[in-house]
Amino acid sequence: MTEQALSINGKRLWTSLMDLAKVGATPKGGNCRLALTALDGEGRDLVVGWMKDAGLSIEVDQIGNIFGRRPGRDNTRAPVMVGSHIDTQPTGGKFDGCFGVLAGLEVMRTLQDHQLETDAPLELAIWTNEEGSRFIPVMMGSGVFAKKFSLETALNARDAKGIAVRDELKAIGYAGSAEVGARPVGAYFEAHIEQGPILEHEDHIIGAVTGSLGLRWYDVNVTGMEMHAGPTPMATRKDALYATSFLIQAVVDIARQNQPYGRGTVGEIQVHPGSRNVIPGGARITVDLRHKDADTLAEMDKTWRAACDEVARQHNVTIEVEQVGQFEPTPFDPSLVEKIRLGAAHRGLSVMDIVTGAGHDAVYMAAVAPTAMIFVPCKDGISHNEIEDAKPEHLEAGANVLLDAMIARANETR
Amino acid sequence: MTEQALSINGKRLWTSLMDLAKVGATPKGGNCRLALTALDGEGRDLVVGWMKDAGLSIEVDQIGNIFGRRPGRDNTRAPVMVGSHIDTQPTGGKFDGCFGVLAGLEVMRTLQDHQLETDAPLELAIWTNEEGSRFIPVMMGSGVFAKKFSLETALNARDAKGIAVRDELKAIGYAGSAEVGARPVGAYFEAHIEQGPILEHEDHIIGAVTGSLGLRWYDVNVTGMEMHAGPTPMATRKDALYATSFLIQAVVDIARQNQPYGRGTVGEIQVHPGSRNVIPGGARITVDLRHKDADTLAEMDKTWRAACDEVARQHNVTIEVEQVGQFEPTPFDPSLVEKIRLGAAHRGLSVMDIVTGAGHDAVYMAAVAPTAMIFVPCKDGISHNEIEDAKPEHLEAGANVLLDAMIARANETR
Repeated sequence: MTEQALSINGKRLWTSLMDLAKVGATPKGGNCRLALTALDGEGRDLVVGWMKDAGLSIEVDQIGNIFGRRPGRDNTRAPVMVGSHIDTQPTGGKFDGCFGVLAGLEVMRTLQDHQLETDAPLELAIWTNEEGSRFIPVMMGSGVFAKKFSLETALNARDAKGIAVRDELKAIGYAGSAEVGARPVGAYFEAHIEQGPILEHEDHIIGAVTGSLGLRWYDVNVTGMEMHAGPTPMATRKDALYATSFLIQAVVDIARQNQPYGRGTVGEIQVHPGSRNVIPGGARITVDLRHKDADTLAEMDKTWRAACDEVARQHNVTIEVEQVGQFEPTPFDPSLVEKIRLGAAHRGLSVMDIVTGAGHDAVYMAAVAPTAMIFVPCKDGISHNEIEDAKPEHLEAGANVLLDAMIARANETR
Repeated sequence: MTEQALSINGKRLWTSLMDLAKVGATPKGGNCRLALTALDGEGRDLVVGWMKDAGLSIEVDQIGNIFGRRPGRDNTRAPVMVGSHIDTQPTGGKFDGCFGVLAGLEVMRTLQDHQLETDAPLELAIWTNEEGSRFIPVMMGSGVFAKKFSLETALNARDAKGIAVRDELKAIGYAGSAEVGARPVGAYFEAHIEQGPILEHEDHIIGAVTGSLGLRWYDVNVTGMEMHAGPTPMATRKDALYATSFLIQAVVDIARQNQPYGRGTVGEIQVHPGSRNVIPGGARITVDLRHKDADTLAEMDKTWRAACDEVARQHNVTIEVEQVGQFEPTPFDPSLVEKIRLGAAHRGLSVMDIVTGAGHDAVYMAAVAPTAMIFVPCKDGISHNEIEDAKPEHLEAGANVLLDAMIARANETR
C-alpha cells in the first residue's frame, strides 16, 4: 500500500479526545485539569494506558515528561518525535494540547493496526505543565528538555498554595528517573488547534506552521499630576490617562504598520488614584509586541520607544518603559514544513502557511531538533475557554497530515 | 472711620487656623478630621468657644449645622450669612473649609474689636459634613438646609462601619433642635482657597466667583471580544481598550473645544480580563464633563454621545453610556459678586472673575439666598492633600474682602 492510502481512524481519535475530556470536565463543557493535580495524574494514567495498548514502551523523566517509544527498523537513528501536553487552563477546552497528544497516539495506533514499521523509531511525548496556569515557568517540561532553564528551577516552582512541583510529581506518580533532555530527537512534530481565527477566516483546513512570532513585553509607567477634575483648567493639566491613550494607539499603529505578522496589544491598565473626579496622576499599562522577524521586531521596539518619548514631550508627563519579557522569533525547519504542505496537498486538503502567535512546546523543541507544527481550525478562533471547539473532520485531517509527515521523515534516506 | 479703613487681624486669623489644625493633625502636616468623629466634635467645640468669645449666640440645628448670630440694628432683616465647613478629607489640608469659617469668625471678631454694628444681623455658619468622605451625600448640612434632600436621608446615612449620622451627632453633642432650613438668610458669602491653579497662574490674589460649573457624570461600558494577543491578527480584533483610547481623547477634545469653562476628565478605567497577553474584551470608564453654561453643557453631552456612536461604529465594539450624575451650573448673585470685585479694587488687591469647578456649600446656598464666593490662591492648585498650602497674606486679603462685602451688604438700603 502507498503511504497516502494509509489513514488514521478519525472516529477513534474523537472518542479518545472525548474520553480524556471526561477527566476534569467542567459544567460549561470545558476542562480543568491543572498541571500535576490528581486530575492531571488521572489523565496521564488514561493516556499512558492507551500508549501501552498501542505497543509503546514508556519512560518518564525527572520533570515528569512522558515518552512512548515505537521501535524502527534502524534503532540507531534518532526518533521522529510527536508531542504536546494534556494539562489545561483553569477554564480550558478539550482540544488545546490534547489534540496534539492524541493525534500522535492515533499515528502510533494506525501503524500498529497495519503492522507497519518505519526506518527511524517514533516517539510520542507528553510534556509537563505547558499551560503555566498553576506553576511557572510555562512550557516547563519542554523548557527543561531544551535547557531553557534548569531542572532545579522547575522542580522548586510552587503554586499559589506553596506546593512544589517536586512534591506533586511524586504525589501523582510521575517523578521519573530519566535524565531530562538526554534522549536524542531526530525531528519534532506537533499538531495543535490554531487558537486564532486565520484558518477559519481564510477557509483552509491545514496550517503549515513556518515558525513562531517573537515577542517583547513591556511594563510602562506614566506619571502626570493628580488634580481636581473641576477646578483644574484643561491647559494646565498633566493627565496621565489622556497621555496613555496615545500610547495605546501607538502600540496598535506600530503593529498595523508591520502586517501581516505584526501584533500589538495593551492588555492591562491601572490608573492612580482612580477616582471619578480626579485627573489621573499615574497610569500603568502592559505592552505586548510581536513579529515573526527578529529585525522587524527590533525596529518595532525602536519605534515604540520613540513614541513614548514623543508622547511624554507632547503631554507633559514622564514615561518609564521597562522591557520585562522577550522571546526571539523561531523559524521552523523548512524541510519538515514542506512535508506538511505536501501531505496536505496529496490528500486534497486546503493548506496555507501560518505563523504561530502563541507559545507551544514546539517552540522550545525547535532548539533541540528540526521542528514543525500542523494547525487545524478552531471555532471562532477561541481557545483557553470552555467553549473552545473544533470539527472532527478537521482534527482527522490534521492527524492524517501528521501521519504522512512523520512517516515521510522516518523513512527518509539519510 | 470709613469701611475701607477697617481691616481684619491677619495674624489672629493665621493663629486660629493653626490652632484648629492641631485637632486631627497628621504627620505630613495635614488634617484628618472626618465629619462627626470625636475629632470633629473637638474642632467644633474649639471654634464654638471662639464664636462665643466673639459675642455670637449659638444655635445648632437637627443636622448639626452650627449658627453664630451677631445682632444688627434692625433684627427684622434677614441676616447676612458667612460660612463653610471644618470637616476634612482623610488626608486633607489645613485650609479647605476652615479658612471660610475662620475668615467669617475674623469678620465677627473685627466688628467686636471696633464695637461696630451693622444694619442687618450677621451669622456665621459651620455646615456639617461638606467633604462626604465618611458619609454621603456630600455637602450634607447645606444640602438639607437647601432642601436638596431630606433630613431623614441625612440622619440615616451610615459610614463604612455602619455607624449612622443620627448617632454620631448625639455622640459628639451636636444633635441640635432647630429645624433645618427654617432660619431666614438675606445673603450668603463663602471664602475658600481656590483648590485649582488659576489665581496663582494668573497672578491674582482675589477670585470673584461668578458661579459654579455644571457637571454631568457618566459610566461607560465598552464591549469588544476577548482574544489571544498572539494568534489574533490586527484586522480581526475587537479591542475594547483600543476603542476606549478614542473615547478618552474625545472627552478631552470636547472640553478643549469649549474653553475657558469646559472640563473633561476620565478618572477611572478598568479592563477585562486584564491580562498581559489577552486583547481586552471589555473596558469601563467614568466620564466627568463640566461647563458653566447649561446650554453649552447640553451641547457637550450631545457631542459626547455622538462620539461614542462614532467610536463604536469605527472600532467594531458596542458602547453603553449611562448618565449617573448631574449638577446644573449655578450662577452666583451679580450684585454680591460686584461687591467682592469692588472690595478688592478699593484695597488695591488684584482680582479676577473665576468660576468654581469644585462643589461648595455655597452652591447649595445659592438656591436659598443671593450667594457669592471669594477665592484666594492655594499653592500649586493642590487641595484635598496634606501638603495643601496658602500664604498668610492671601488669606488676610481674602478675609478683608469678605469683611468689606459683608458690611456693604448688611448696610445696604433696602
